[in-house]
Amino acid sequence: MDPFRRAVQQLARLPGVGERTATRYAYWLLRQSPEVSTQLADAIVNLRTGIRECETCCDLSPLSPCLRCADGKRDPSLVCVVERPQDVGAIDAAGEFRGRFHVLHGALSPLDGIGPDQLRLRELVARAPDLREVILATDPDVEGDTTALYVAKLLAPLGVKVTRLAHGLAVGTAIEFADRASLARALQGRLPL
Amino acid sequence: MDPFRRAVQQLARLPGVGERTATRYAYWLLRQSPEVSTQLADAIVNLRTGIRECETCCDLSPLSPCLRCADGKRDPSLVCVVERPQDVGAIDAAGEFRGRFHVLHGALSPLDGIGPDQLRLRELVARAPDLREVILATDPDVEGDTTALYVAKLLAPLGVKVTRLAHGLAVGTAIEFADRASLARALQGRLPL
Repeated sequence: MDPFRRAVQQLARLPGVGERTATRYAYWLLRQSPEVSTQLADAIVNLRTGIRECETCCDLSPLSPCLRCADGKRDPSLVCVVERPQDVGAIDAAGEFRGRFHVLHGALSPLDGIGPDQLRLRELVARAPDLREVILATDPDVEGDTTALYVAKLLAPLGVKVTRLAHGLAVGTAIEFADRASLARALQGRLPL
Repeated sequence: MDPFRRAVQQLARLPGVGERTATRYAYWLLRQSPEVSTQLADAIVNLRTGIRECETCCDLSPLSPCLRCADGKRDPSLVCVVERPQDVGAIDAAGEFRGRFHVLHGALSPLDGIGPDQLRLRELVARAPDLREVILATDPDVEGDTTALYVAKLLAPLGVKVTRLAHGLAVGTAIEFADRASLARALQGRLPL
């Protein structure tokens, strides 16, 4: 196939990229020096060969165990369970959590064919003997709620305390403009003053 | 550098791609089989090594002369001058033109540092002895208009007839909703019925 057509076809596989955007990328690459293409191609290949799942927490990392699992200053008995690798950085950035992580790589969604076997649950259960508390930080949607319940049931007989992130009003939200679901959760989770 | 950070950095160089989108692409690539990354990387490298400028018309093509320049059924004395390789396909698709092309690779724009030397004008002048008519199909904006005038002046002493695409109402546009510039051009270019 013509190298141009093939490049467009391959670039159009990226998420959210259609043929129009892929064509734009291809013409842009043709206008740059050849090194730009080589560097991009190298980075893409190295990404896939240089990043693996940490054998403990299943986060994506160039090292296994990853830097967080190897960090002695993080409480090894406190684990925050998230759906995606992206969530790890978000929770770390909040600055409230100094434990370790566990990445499920998805949430239960029978309609999409994602059952317990597709998630890193076996790896989580294997860590249970060393754990004091597991904080479930799955998304506040149907899949995330289902997954949280499933994990809680899985860990209950193993003597691990299971908690879930609080849901309620986002900081800075005026009650007038809060969505109904968040308001309902804020009422259910109200605390004594 | 961490292969993930480097991949995000490289992907974020693509036009219109910020760090957020680049991160999304990187995580997507990590979720696919390794072949997806290899195929994409190969296609990017082959794009740059497999596509060159046709020595006659300066269009981008895996071959030189390109397929259009080698097509004996296209009138070699009639040449349509466009700014970008993308424009060639658009004009061909209109089905009205059976001549050859010439791609300038840009339009005159002194503020962006694009002068006559940055365009493929020397290559166009070299073709002039074989040409009967040159149709200027640069964009109807300041840079395109300037470029059209410049090319017309360049070719005038060489005895080539120079024409420009008609501008006016787009087919299907109601006069009520036509933009002022198009309406002005439609009045200037009115034809006897």
